Amino acid sequence: MSLITLMTDFGLKDANIGVMKGVIFGINPSATVIDMSHQILPQNVLEASYLLARGVPYFPKNTIHVVVVDPGVGTFRRPMVCKVGDWFFVGPDNGFLTGVIEYGKKYGLEMRFFHLSNPKFWLEEVSYVFHGRDIFSPVAAHLSTGVPMSEFGPEFTDPVLLDLPKPTVKEHSIVGEVIYIDNFGSLITNITRTDVNNLNIPAPELIIKAGDCQIQGMVNTFGDREVGSLVCLYSSTGNVIISVVNGSAADATGYGLRTKVQLGNKLND
Amino acid sequence: MSLITLMTDFGLKDANIGVMKGVIFGINPSATVIDMSHQILPQNVLEASYLLARGVPYFPKNTIHVVVVDPGVGTFRRPMVCKVGDWFFVGPDNGFLTGVIEYGKKYGLEMRFFHLSNPKFWLEEVSYVFHGRDIFSPVAAHLSTGVPMSEFGPEFTDPVLLDLPKPTVKEHSIVGEVIYIDNFGSLITNITRTDVNNLNIPAPELIIKAGDCQIQGMVNTFGDREVGSLVCLYSSTGNVIISVVNGSAADATGYGLRTKVQLGNKLND
Amino acid sequence: MSLITLMTDFGLKDANIGVMKGVIFGINPSATVIDMSHQILPQNVLEASYLLARGVPYFPKNTIHVVVVDPGVGTFRRPMVCKVGDWFFVGPDNGFLTGVIEYGKKYGLEMRFFHLSNPKFWLEEVSYVFHGRDIFSPVAAHLSTGVPMSEFGPEFTDPVLLDLPKPTVKEHSIVGEVIYIDNFGSLITNITRTDVNNLNIPAPELIIKAGDCQIQGMVNTFGDREVGSLVCLYSSTGNVIISVVNGSAADATGYGLRTKVQLGNKLND
Repeated sequence: MSLITLMTDFGLKDANIGVMKGVIFGINPSATVIDMSHQILPQNVLEASYLLARGVPYFPKNTIHVVVVDPGVGTFRRPMVCKVGDWFFVGPDNGFLTGVIEYGKKYGLEMRFFHLSNPKFWLEEVSYVFHGRDIFSPVAAHLSTGVPMSEFGPEFTDPVLLDLPKPTVKEHSIVGEVIYIDNFGSLITNITRTDVNNLNIPAPELIIKAGDCQIQGMVNTFGDREVGSLVCLYSSTGNVIISVVNGSAADATGYGLRTKVQLGNKLND
Repeated sequence: MSLITLMTDFGLKDANIGVMKGVIFGINPSATVIDMSHQILPQNVLEASYLLARGVPYFPKNTIHVVVVDPGVGTFRRPMVCKVGDWFFVGPDNGFLTGVIEYGKKYGLEMRFFHLSNPKFWLEEVSYVFHGRDIFSPVAAHLSTGVPMSEFGPEFTDPVLLDLPKPTVKEHSIVGEVIYIDNFGSLITNITRTDVNNLNIPAPELIIKAGDCQIQGMVNTFGDREVGSLVCLYSSTGNVIISVVNGSAADATGYGLRTKVQLGNKLND
Repeated sequence: MSLITLMTDFGLKDANIGVMKGVIFGINPSATVIDMSHQILPQNVLEASYLLARGVPYFPKNTIHVVVVDPGVGTFRRPMVCKVGDWFFVGPDNGFLTGVIEYGKKYGLEMRFFHLSNPKFWLEEVSYVFHGRDIFSPVAAHLSTGVPMSEFGPEFTDPVLLDLPKPTVKEHSIVGEVIYIDNFGSLITNITRTDVNNLNIPAPELIIKAGDCQIQGMVNTFGDREVGSLVCLYSSTGNVIISVVNGSAADATGYGLRTKVQLGNKLND
């Protein structure tokens, strides 16, 4: 099996995703192609980096992830194919891989990057504005048929990295921020389970503060508190999140991306 | 072929559906996985039950339907795998199967229910908040490779059933309610073709009343009346629906879920 | 491989797309089925025609495109299966194929049209309101297993054609209109690269006027101007489009479908 996934900011209406799949199946009729998300905020590479990194560990080895959130399409930015551990990635070298590269560094995975410069693997005519169709889809399809990465172009070692917001760890507290709001309106922060464990404070004694809201203690899951309560828990990938049980924390609090979140037992230390 | 379908309230942006498919293909690379709906209203098990039941009869036998609308995730509610007739179902035992079970009873289909208690078929680490990824997807994938239901856990016979709203049948009329609003803004009621046939009133003589609106006669299809008209007809699964020809009945009337709908020739009898 | 694509105005919530796929896989378990768009504006056959025609050239030969935007469902309008060049099409004969037929004429492709009148290839029960499920999906599935078009019904030669808006070409200018607005808010016009080339005016000297907005010169791609600028360039399929760099031209200008767009160096000649 050759599993290819697609992540873009193209939306689902314009049929561009269908067209990308048409190009792929024209080259590799036996590929399996699935959608990650096509509702990345327009040009928001940071959001793509976050969603990609949290999803990748659940994919089988040799999966090819195509990510096209590409504000620089048609200008100079390197198109690339990469391998991090057992997974492949195809897209513009604009930072979308930052979260995955951090993951790769953390677990000591091998990483290799190649500049897509060989037009043999592109569509014959390449537009200025839709490299997802003209370059990235055909490259992913050829890759899925077994073409080695080195045939697509020269290797390089300096992929573009985004400056991901990092939490500030103090002795008795951590200060982070909201980095994503999910479909249920949960506020997902950049504070991780590891960060919290290092504080060595029992979960019920933790105080979580976001804007004017304060929550006493972390819970395991939504059902641990009453419907409508504001709760703090870990997301399925181990980030601290703030939710409303059977409701939307984003709607209830009005808070959004970049909102500061403090967590600890002495929030000023 | 192993056909697996997914229905959730996860939306399409967060890439959680892609991740569930990644987990499935990691276990069964030859599965075919398709989407039913990922826009179920958050935590609305009743809506999932309705959409699932009306779709299931159109699927080939041995299809595995995974349904994850799961307000109780991480608390005690049985995760289950079931068989109703020739179809399999995987999800939390919270009532999502009610409509299918009613269908099974009506047609005398065999039904069996098993409690998912054997962690051998789950991901190694199970989060508190994403059993769709950690339990239900891997179980569906293993099921699709031929693992018998009994290996997933002990059998049980008392699945949770929702109290589905039933129409009241009188001698010359029926009183039902709007149970779903579709993409075109049609108001779908719980009154069925069988209910109407039992009244023995010719279609043109039927009076349909919803809130302040009254419609004379049922038609076969939208094109039977002028654009913009409010019409009453049968949906593709035999429910009485109220539509606006090339428009939205929900927008035109302002009526929504639970709106009472009367149908007959003497609405008070 | 048998590649089948689906384009509808059904939206993604109601599970009707999943049901159509269930019907297809019940007939041809080895089909590959992908989505083109299910967010066509309700009953908007013109929009379907545009998106289909611009996508079709990127699909492998023998792809079967099913298009169900069907205001006349259940009334008399011919259901049809067609072949244009190497691609097949299934849907109601209501004009959705107009753009593809123009493409076929331009490139001298063979075109054949057959009236779906043989119920042998439909579901046993055909509803009045969901021919996508009951007629078009099973026909596409049977076609994908190799059933010849002539078995579905008699041939005909007069498919319904929409009156597509054409630009007016003058000596020093062209007057067209906005025919589609994409996910990024770009205004896509019916003026093509060929139309512009025929004017023989260097790109920097072109003046583009839409409503009160005037743009000097066409650029190659978004990155050629500063973020926030209104720019005019060619879409990936060679239409003149008006965009805002990393923004939405639709939001910035308030212009929409049918807005008049003039392009040339003497706009009144």
